[in-house]
Amino acid sequence: MSEPTTTQTDFFSRHRELLERAVTAIQERAEFSAFSENPRDPGYGENAIKDGATAFQALLGKTFDLGQPQSGTVPATEKSPYGIPLDLTYSYLGPDELVATAKEAGRSWRRASADQRAGVCLEILVRLNRASFELANAVQFTTGQAFAMAFQAGGTHAQDRGLEAVAYAWKEQHFHPGSAIWSKPQPKGGPLTMEKTFTTLGRGVALVVSCVTFPTWNTYPGLFASLATGNPVILKPHPRSILPVAITVRIAREVLAEAGFDPNTVLLAPDMPGEPIAGKLATHPDVRIIDYTGSTEFGEWIEANARQATVYAEKAGLNAVVLDSTDNYKGLLSNLAFSLSLYSGQMCTTPQNLLIPSAGIKTDQGHRSPEEFGADLSAALNGLLGDVKRATGILGAISGEAVTERIDDAAGRGPVVRASEAVEHPQHPDATVRSPLLVALKASDEGTYTQEWFGPISFIIETDGTPASLDILRDTVRQYGALTAAVHSTDESVLAAAREAALDAGVHLSENLTGGVFVNQSAAFSDFHGSPANPAATATLSDPAFVAGRFSTVQSRRHVPAPAQA
Amino acid sequence: MSEPTTTQTDFFSRHRELLERAVTAIQERAEFSAFSENPRDPGYGENAIKDGATAFQALLGKTFDLGQPQSGTVPATEKSPYGIPLDLTYSYLGPDELVATAKEAGRSWRRASADQRAGVCLEILVRLNRASFELANAVQFTTGQAFAMAFQAGGTHAQDRGLEAVAYAWKEQHFHPGSAIWSKPQPKGGPLTMEKTFTTLGRGVALVVSCVTFPTWNTYPGLFASLATGNPVILKPHPRSILPVAITVRIAREVLAEAGFDPNTVLLAPDMPGEPIAGKLATHPDVRIIDYTGSTEFGEWIEANARQATVYAEKAGLNAVVLDSTDNYKGLLSNLAFSLSLYSGQMCTTPQNLLIPSAGIKTDQGHRSPEEFGADLSAALNGLLGDVKRATGILGAISGEAVTERIDDAAGRGPVVRASEAVEHPQHPDATVRSPLLVALKASDEGTYTQEWFGPISFIIETDGTPASLDILRDTVRQYGALTAAVHSTDESVLAAAREAALDAGVHLSENLTGGVFVNQSAAFSDFHGSPANPAATATLSDPAFVAGRFSTVQSRRHVPAPAQA
Repeated sequence: MSEPTTTQTDFFSRHRELLERAVTAIQERAEFSAFSENPRDPGYGENAIKDGATAFQALLGKTFDLGQPQSGTVPATEKSPYGIPLDLTYSYLGPDELVATAKEAGRSWRRASADQRAGVCLEILVRLNRASFELANAVQFTTGQAFAMAFQAGGTHAQDRGLEAVAYAWKEQHFHPGSAIWSKPQPKGGPLTMEKTFTTLGRGVALVVSCVTFPTWNTYPGLFASLATGNPVILKPHPRSILPVAITVRIAREVLAEAGFDPNTVLLAPDMPGEPIAGKLATHPDVRIIDYTGSTEFGEWIEANARQATVYAEKAGLNAVVLDSTDNYKGLLSNLAFSLSLYSGQMCTTPQNLLIPSAGIKTDQGHRSPEEFGADLSAALNGLLGDVKRATGILGAISGEAVTERIDDAAGRGPVVRASEAVEHPQHPDATVRSPLLVALKASDEGTYTQEWFGPISFIIETDGTPASLDILRDTVRQYGALTAAVHSTDESVLAAAREAALDAGVHLSENLTGGVFVNQSAAFSDFHGSPANPAATATLSDPAFVAGRFSTVQSRRHVPAPAQA
Repeated sequence: MSEPTTTQTDFFSRHRELLERAVTAIQERAEFSAFSENPRDPGYGENAIKDGATAFQALLGKTFDLGQPQSGTVPATEKSPYGIPLDLTYSYLGPDELVATAKEAGRSWRRASADQRAGVCLEILVRLNRASFELANAVQFTTGQAFAMAFQAGGTHAQDRGLEAVAYAWKEQHFHPGSAIWSKPQPKGGPLTMEKTFTTLGRGVALVVSCVTFPTWNTYPGLFASLATGNPVILKPHPRSILPVAITVRIAREVLAEAGFDPNTVLLAPDMPGEPIAGKLATHPDVRIIDYTGSTEFGEWIEANARQATVYAEKAGLNAVVLDSTDNYKGLLSNLAFSLSLYSGQMCTTPQNLLIPSAGIKTDQGHRSPEEFGADLSAALNGLLGDVKRATGILGAISGEAVTERIDDAAGRGPVVRASEAVEHPQHPDATVRSPLLVALKASDEGTYTQEWFGPISFIIETDGTPASLDILRDTVRQYGALTAAVHSTDESVLAAAREAALDAGVHLSENLTGGVFVNQSAAFSDFHGSPANPAATATLSDPAFVAGRFSTVQSRRHVPAPAQA
């Protein structure tokens, strides 16, 4: 273990301006992004796309070397949804050894100041940004995302979410001063005067359990929030998307070592097949913080059993769209078609339940019955996905067999409005690509639509009218949770009622999205993602609550001579 | 249920200056107090002491009327440690009805803004301050505190801690703006522009479970933090100190009603004898926040079973003093004697384990062996408590039989250095008053000193030297928790090692207290009380983490025309 040297302060000075800009952004919630989402941005260099692909290719078929302590090798568990061979193996270390190693590393990390920790985190983020093309390939070929999305959601947007978490962590750690003079006048004699010192202290070893589909976007907020608040972090990737997390760990360890800290402050924890490690790590007495993204079932298991830790979880939910009326029907349809298609609906934010009055809706194109709306949305999907290159660029590939099985199951739950079609990928013939399925349901089909159907599966649900739609939104989200909700209405009183229902349910609401903003996307520094106000999550990315519980402020006090009078 | 009217905004305007002063104080951590701790302060009025006693007397022998919904009457369960008859009865409502009533009241409270809620909280605090003498009598005669302490710790200091919590809650709710314009330039055409609205939303019904000895000081932070962040609050007092909580609820309900809110936003929940209500309330699915002060056993039960709620708990711990050396031995002894005597050690902050090297300590009065130190501390206690009036003014009365039994038990655990003596109270002959017990132990007597001995019980523990003392401090606090730790040393390297040990253990440290500041007292707005960094607590009074989890920020967004260019 190395003691911190003076070099780590350089990173803070180097990135201070960016950090302060990010702190302003989280407080203003206006548009801000630190990392260009345009892969053709000249800042990335002329050969960035090619170099990224080369760097990715160079990793395949080998053991990914992180220089961590190890007791074995994890055989290849990643299988590309695009059908390309990956053959990646990783060093293995058992859960007790991982936690002990992290805990030991945490002793030097604890001694760093909040500024020093922020400096290290920002340097990691900047280097992750430089590796965005390598990361984009890693995300694309492990998760099935298309390249553009893998570059943005898996790369620059994830980096922005990481920076956002660092900004909250740094700001909250500076809520209190490092020291203060307390001086209390006394009835007799001079004042009682004390010097008080306040030190921020991480809770202990932090664990981040990642999901298969968003191995960076859903991982960086917890990673950087814990790291910036003084906690060593163990990253437990999903066995099918380890590589993007491993690249992240490699870069974090490089920066930590350069800054004079123990690189084991960040550790990768891949599972040995047949010996899942997450439960053992999550319940280890020295693991004090857990960030989790994944199934509701395992999330609830962690919440029930990891009693020694503070848990920030994002689980499944029922995202709904309330359709009441619109003055831009074409915009509504194209916006919704894109939302349902993006990454084949394999997002925790994709709308599932489309709630429409059985009497139909008023639009600028005339009245539309539920059947007509279903036909129009199908046509919009067919238009969007008519060109196979564009289609695969939006849909990506199906991440696993469970999704295709779920599509088949859902198709039997009601009249199929639009069937999910297999699309042949022009570059990757072995990829499974499927377009969105639309199924018609009645309000009484709760047995179907109160489950989450992760994948390109949505239901057009006929209700007794918009008030009934809002009731379903409120009730299903309160009981089962949701990451997103949307409403389309030209009537301000309906929009007000929708806001009220969304507040009742504790879900973020998008109103009348008909252009280039989609309900399943949230902008770092401006949009909140998730809310502990409904069961789908116990945290918001990001807000003060997301960072405040990861550290405490411990004080010491001693008498000093009274300060001289001014 | 009444909708808020315009009147509640008056309270915010009325108290805005005080609130902003408090917000400055929590960020500066310098000396600040909003409420005078001097009962003879002219601001309280000439007859305040007499009027307070009269108001208190007028309550006795009756059913305390709060105007809450009720289904029965709780018979008298309070028994004054001073032996005076109380005969207080209270309205009863079952746990399900209490939660349903609070939940319904929360619907109007949710609609209030953070400013409106802060205004109501501040008005409550100001009225509590005006009732400080009535409250002091209620605290004194239910808990056994002496009047001066009941006035300060039970009155004005508790009010300051309440204001501190409101300041954190208000500040954190204003971390984000109420709305923002997000405008993102597009490659083609004008920018995408959205208006975003951010609403703070309480988690749900909050429960505060109070302890017998500090029914207001340990209750106000949770009460005001939850109330200010938009949650209705149920106060569950200890059956032996209901009255101070009931007076608090009375005043809160008055202010809520005047402000146009449902008074049931704050409810009293006394137990029916034989039917303890806390467990049922704590595990009710609609109870989402719990503040708990009390035994470790029940605290751990709540943490294990109240899975639907965020729990802020303060439990028992092992407070230690490391004795190494001093340049003010007399000051050390008198300061420590007072700390051990105050309220007969019935404080969660009273030092229990006094760690001294077997080779003795260096002082300005010469070298002192553990035996000599024991004799000197006994002499200091005898001096402090020699006058019976002063003695009872410091010691107060023993709050219950468990404490006297514990004194007898502890006296058998090792050589008695100073016996606990019964003191006859000049005004209250039926009161049980006991002076501190000192017992000599060895470092190997862990079986005794790793338990909490709540009451006037301390151990002088011989160790192999100061490094061994620091190890015991570190190890016992890490494993069993502590609210306070102290060190006496003239050696800066020992003080640095003590700070390091305290950080390792996650406990606040007081260094070389030899004057008018005592380790068992913490000043609101400057000193932190408790820390989730050790097992004695899961919260700090107060810090951002204490308030941030009590609310979330829920957003809605919609497109708007792009703002005009500047």
